[in-house]
Amino acid sequence: MSGKNRAMYLDASHQFTKRECEIPEPAQDEVLIKIAANGICGSDIHFYSEGRLGNFVVSKPYIPGHEASGTVVATGSGVKRFSTGEKVVIEPGIPCGRCTVCMSGRYNLCPDVVFLSAPPINGTFCDYICVRSDFVFSVPENMSLEHAALVEPAAVAVHSVNRAGALNGKTGLVFGAGPIGLLTLQAFKAAGGGRVICVDIMDNRLEIAAKLGADEVINPKNAPKLENLADVVFETAGSTVTTAQLFTAARVGASVVQVGWPVGNHVNMNIADLLDKELTYTGVNRYANAYPPAIQYICDGRIDVKPLITHTFDFEDTPHAFQFAKENPDKVIKVVIKN
Amino acid sequence: MSGKNRAMYLDASHQFTKRECEIPEPAQDEVLIKIAANGICGSDIHFYSEGRLGNFVVSKPYIPGHEASGTVVATGSGVKRFSTGEKVVIEPGIPCGRCTVCMSGRYNLCPDVVFLSAPPINGTFCDYICVRSDFVFSVPENMSLEHAALVEPAAVAVHSVNRAGALNGKTGLVFGAGPIGLLTLQAFKAAGGGRVICVDIMDNRLEIAAKLGADEVINPKNAPKLENLADVVFETAGSTVTTAQLFTAARVGASVVQVGWPVGNHVNMNIADLLDKELTYTGVNRYANAYPPAIQYICDGRIDVKPLITHTFDFEDTPHAFQFAKENPDKVIKVVIKN
Amino acid sequence: MSGKNRAMYLDASHQFTKRECEIPEPAQDEVLIKIAANGICGSDIHFYSEGRLGNFVVSKPYIPGHEASGTVVATGSGVKRFSTGEKVVIEPGIPCGRCTVCMSGRYNLCPDVVFLSAPPINGTFCDYICVRSDFVFSVPENMSLEHAALVEPAAVAVHSVNRAGALNGKTGLVFGAGPIGLLTLQAFKAAGGGRVICVDIMDNRLEIAAKLGADEVINPKNAPKLENLADVVFETAGSTVTTAQLFTAARVGASVVQVGWPVGNHVNMNIADLLDKELTYTGVNRYANAYPPAIQYICDGRIDVKPLITHTFDFEDTPHAFQFAKENPDKVIKVVIKN
Amino acid sequence: MSGKNRAMYLDASHQFTKRECEIPEPAQDEVLIKIAANGICGSDIHFYSEGRLGNFVVSKPYIPGHEASGTVVATGSGVKRFSTGEKVVIEPGIPCGRCTVCMSGRYNLCPDVVFLSAPPINGTFCDYICVRSDFVFSVPENMSLEHAALVEPAAVAVHSVNRAGALNGKTGLVFGAGPIGLLTLQAFKAAGGGRVICVDIMDNRLEIAAKLGADEVINPKNAPKLENLADVVFETAGSTVTTAQLFTAARVGASVVQVGWPVGNHVNMNIADLLDKELTYTGVNRYANAYPPAIQYICDGRIDVKPLITHTFDFEDTPHAFQFAKENPDKVIKVVIKN
Repeated sequence: MSGKNRAMYLDASHQFTKRECEIPEPAQDEVLIKIAANGICGSDIHFYSEGRLGNFVVSKPYIPGHEASGTVVATGSGVKRFSTGEKVVIEPGIPCGRCTVCMSGRYNLCPDVVFLSAPPINGTFCDYICVRSDFVFSVPENMSLEHAALVEPAAVAVHSVNRAGALNGKTGLVFGAGPIGLLTLQAFKAAGGGRVICVDIMDNRLEIAAKLGADEVINPKNAPKLENLADVVFETAGSTVTTAQLFTAARVGASVVQVGWPVGNHVNMNIADLLDKELTYTGVNRYANAYPPAIQYICDGRIDVKPLITHTFDFEDTPHAFQFAKENPDKVIKVVIKN
Repeated sequence: MSGKNRAMYLDASHQFTKRECEIPEPAQDEVLIKIAANGICGSDIHFYSEGRLGNFVVSKPYIPGHEASGTVVATGSGVKRFSTGEKVVIEPGIPCGRCTVCMSGRYNLCPDVVFLSAPPINGTFCDYICVRSDFVFSVPENMSLEHAALVEPAAVAVHSVNRAGALNGKTGLVFGAGPIGLLTLQAFKAAGGGRVICVDIMDNRLEIAAKLGADEVINPKNAPKLENLADVVFETAGSTVTTAQLFTAARVGASVVQVGWPVGNHVNMNIADLLDKELTYTGVNRYANAYPPAIQYICDGRIDVKPLITHTFDFEDTPHAFQFAKENPDKVIKVVIKN
Repeated sequence: MSGKNRAMYLDASHQFTKRECEIPEPAQDEVLIKIAANGICGSDIHFYSEGRLGNFVVSKPYIPGHEASGTVVATGSGVKRFSTGEKVVIEPGIPCGRCTVCMSGRYNLCPDVVFLSAPPINGTFCDYICVRSDFVFSVPENMSLEHAALVEPAAVAVHSVNRAGALNGKTGLVFGAGPIGLLTLQAFKAAGGGRVICVDIMDNRLEIAAKLGADEVINPKNAPKLENLADVVFETAGSTVTTAQLFTAARVGASVVQVGWPVGNHVNMNIADLLDKELTYTGVNRYANAYPPAIQYICDGRIDVKPLITHTFDFEDTPHAFQFAKENPDKVIKVVIKN
Repeated sequence: MSGKNRAMYLDASHQFTKRECEIPEPAQDEVLIKIAANGICGSDIHFYSEGRLGNFVVSKPYIPGHEASGTVVATGSGVKRFSTGEKVVIEPGIPCGRCTVCMSGRYNLCPDVVFLSAPPINGTFCDYICVRSDFVFSVPENMSLEHAALVEPAAVAVHSVNRAGALNGKTGLVFGAGPIGLLTLQAFKAAGGGRVICVDIMDNRLEIAAKLGADEVINPKNAPKLENLADVVFETAGSTVTTAQLFTAARVGASVVQVGWPVGNHVNMNIADLLDKELTYTGVNRYANAYPPAIQYICDGRIDVKPLITHTFDFEDTPHAFQFAKENPDKVIKVVIKN
């Protein structure tokens, strides 16, 4: 295939450089996708700002981005599931499909997973990418590709809710009304949850939460201690302060789900509450088997991604978009870049 | 408490007799409820038409009815949860709360359950009834008591869906678009199900199904064999014909849920399909822990009961209402009688 | 019934006083039990030594003890399940059987539970006690009543293992080789666990662990960091030091079960590990539905309680037994007092 | 690798022909195994006797056998987990590892599974075979390779027990005391089951069942109707007569597991019992994630395979072994052929 394939490389000195690359050829089991839109994830911002995240380091230029949608432009010889022109999204963590972890249904924990945009692996801020066909998912013709870029964070929300166990009309509490929190509160209702309370320190975010179905919003600045409030509690704020409150906020017998990554990694937890209320506290590492339900819920309106997209930029303005997102955490929910 | 307590007694010769009874006094742990509305259940019709159902026989006059709503008019000395004037619904199967079955969370299977309206136990076609307070549930002030009478069948639907396991956007298939089928298709979506197909031989029922969210409706008269269609399959028609099709209609790895009671009790099942597709086939016996989610889903609109109430009658016309329901299975979805 | 009923009252000044009481009459749903043996629990020692545990305070003399066995000597008029002379054990936490927590199968979390020996409720260090019949369990004729006194801690172990989910030959790790740890390692194998590693700082306890089926024993004094060792990790030592190590010791996807109560209630936990390995961390609050399996496993030899009973005392020597247990934590696994 | 590779080909006229083949070269992700022993499975006998089973037909000569053990003699360049000389067993159903069924943890239901010995795919009655390394499992040095040949049917038993859900000391009932039944009763106890009853019409089989831990054995010729006996009921006899009894034999709330394939595929089932007792009835299709626990339980003695091996033959006598197994269903439990 001819044509140009722009790619935005990020280097260790926080600079983006646009390169024109070859359009890759799909291998036998791959799909070649023309990227239409990309969301900027908080992890992308970390790599941009700090040059690292956890054990991953930007030691040489790489392409960020893993919240991508596009259209199929070519398929490998062994691919039957896709036709040219189909709208698709990419599940960016590609496991081996061979180890005992994969075969037990928890492929997100595969030790050999290849994650697009985890340096040095390239991500999706480019025009064309080849992806193993089983990690490409069709979206309906009437779904906007800009909205489809949010399937990836929606899958995090769906998986977080799955980790909570049977919901059966239970009451939920979501700490954090950023992109993941706002998607989690919707996924919670989509999957059978009942009333849901949303907690954040920014009132503008709480307003969006209320519009998206939160039955009650709490700004802790104005609230007493959050105690015995919910049967299912989600931490999506990535804060040590909220993480330390999780067990207190949970009712007896509750499920508590840690989605956000608290700075510093360690938190002083109230184990007495864990024991006394016999809580179940689960971590979330991305998602598994969550793309189909995420697409379903976005299609049928149970998850509304539109209000989350607060800003859009053109692909050529990617460097500016990153800088804007970095500087305006109070205004930005989700930035989407359009190719 | 003074006042009259009308009660509709049904006898073995299919006749109703209205009696005026004493208003009962609530025991220490009971609530006295003034009944506002009652749905007529298919089982009530069986007792009316045939004088028996399964092992239960109308050997002396008794009061039918177990789909009831009303308001609290008095409470026993030990009851703290309710105030006079509160709108409530009654869960009519009251278990011992002591045996190993109850203590394991499946109290609907309690061998000592007392079920209101299973002769000779009196049911709710009366003006006043005392019920053990833990089997009375508040409904919000803004819920119509006529609608609240459908919480009971909605609880059947919710429990049926719970028996199917995690839904996670899966595709469902509901055989039967009567009251239970129409509630099950809604409960399926409420609890995280994805696309849902509804199958019935009456087109007027399928029209309602489509309005209530069925993504596809099938009249088997016009359809080829139903094969490998869904991840979760519900039988609510109570037919041997549809029951015999369940395993064929299910996809590999599916959950199949039997809600309806097929006439004759025995059905020739395709065990090869059960094995080959490794299906899970579960029976449903009423409900357990399903009233709170059923109330929640009706309140927030995920379950719409209004289109199911095709006919209403005054309490004094109860005999006529039963006869009408018996004679018009093609027109009636649900008859509600108002006190 | 005539005869004497000795009872050992403990007061706030750490003194025992033996009183002779009336033998109680069983109510309609109760069983009168002649106590044969009692284990001393760590919680009993706390009340003896410190006069309190958590929110429970010894403000007036009460009878400790809740690990009891005995024989039925009389039954209330409504009790059918028991005959005089039957060997039984007592489940000491008696829930209401009415609330939503009870009816959901997690009756151990009932807010109105009455727990024998939680002051001011009297326990089982006496000759005769009446207990609600559904919380009395038969043990086989050939089980020694001394051994039967350990059904209660065995039920803690069985419940802890149940909280870990499906075992399917997985590898386990038990922190702590005290009574609960030694029972947990056995319950883990009884319920389908595979290899099990036991960690303790006392070599004499590790020797018992090895005899009871631990495939590997580790004294952390001689060991490197415990990392990625097991699919199921139990904390039974009640130590902040071991609790802080749980997530590190767990493999990817593991279940981590907190059984012991760490001093000070709060522990600095590695949330990064919880997220990265997508762990499930569950607290244990006594047990629910665990007496029948605990009795089963002791009967068929899957749980051997004999090696745990390191010391026995006569009922008259109860004060001495408590003092001995308090002073010799290194020598004592379990003290049993025989009436 | 040089040397001879004998292979036993079965054709449509029920004849075996021994051929000498090339020893295959392992591909990059394969292991070359020198076969030591093979069990004869009932399905092998079906292909031998009738030339077909279900949809699989012996249209051209193929190699039967899929219960195989052996030693590693060479590994592909990408294989790290195995060394030459290691004792191993083969999991014979090799799925794609790519489809949604595989990725959900139920890889046994993969539509593209390749099953060794399902004609025209060759099986393990040969000297050398290459197998994808993730479907090869090490067994301990001290396990006899003759015993290791029974890991495959033991995995069926383990998976059947896993399908029953949490056991927690429950009572089991196994219909059929053939190889799968005798392994299932042991796997049931290994995974936390309590008392187990075994039902068969052959007394010699019931004797073995009793030796292997059945607490009660029933020959239905001498027994009344089997009613409300067990919390978990397994059908391993592959009989329509026993399949039709499953729901009656089950207690309220029970799990019923269909392992055997009833002749004729269809059975008249008592749906009234399924509903009334709210049973869960699950099919079993081979196994998934069951080899590690099966190996574990055989190693630690929880599953004893020795008494099942009633006859052994030399590889050269394979035709005779098949004929013997076919003619002596009353004497044979399991025939093992040694290379």
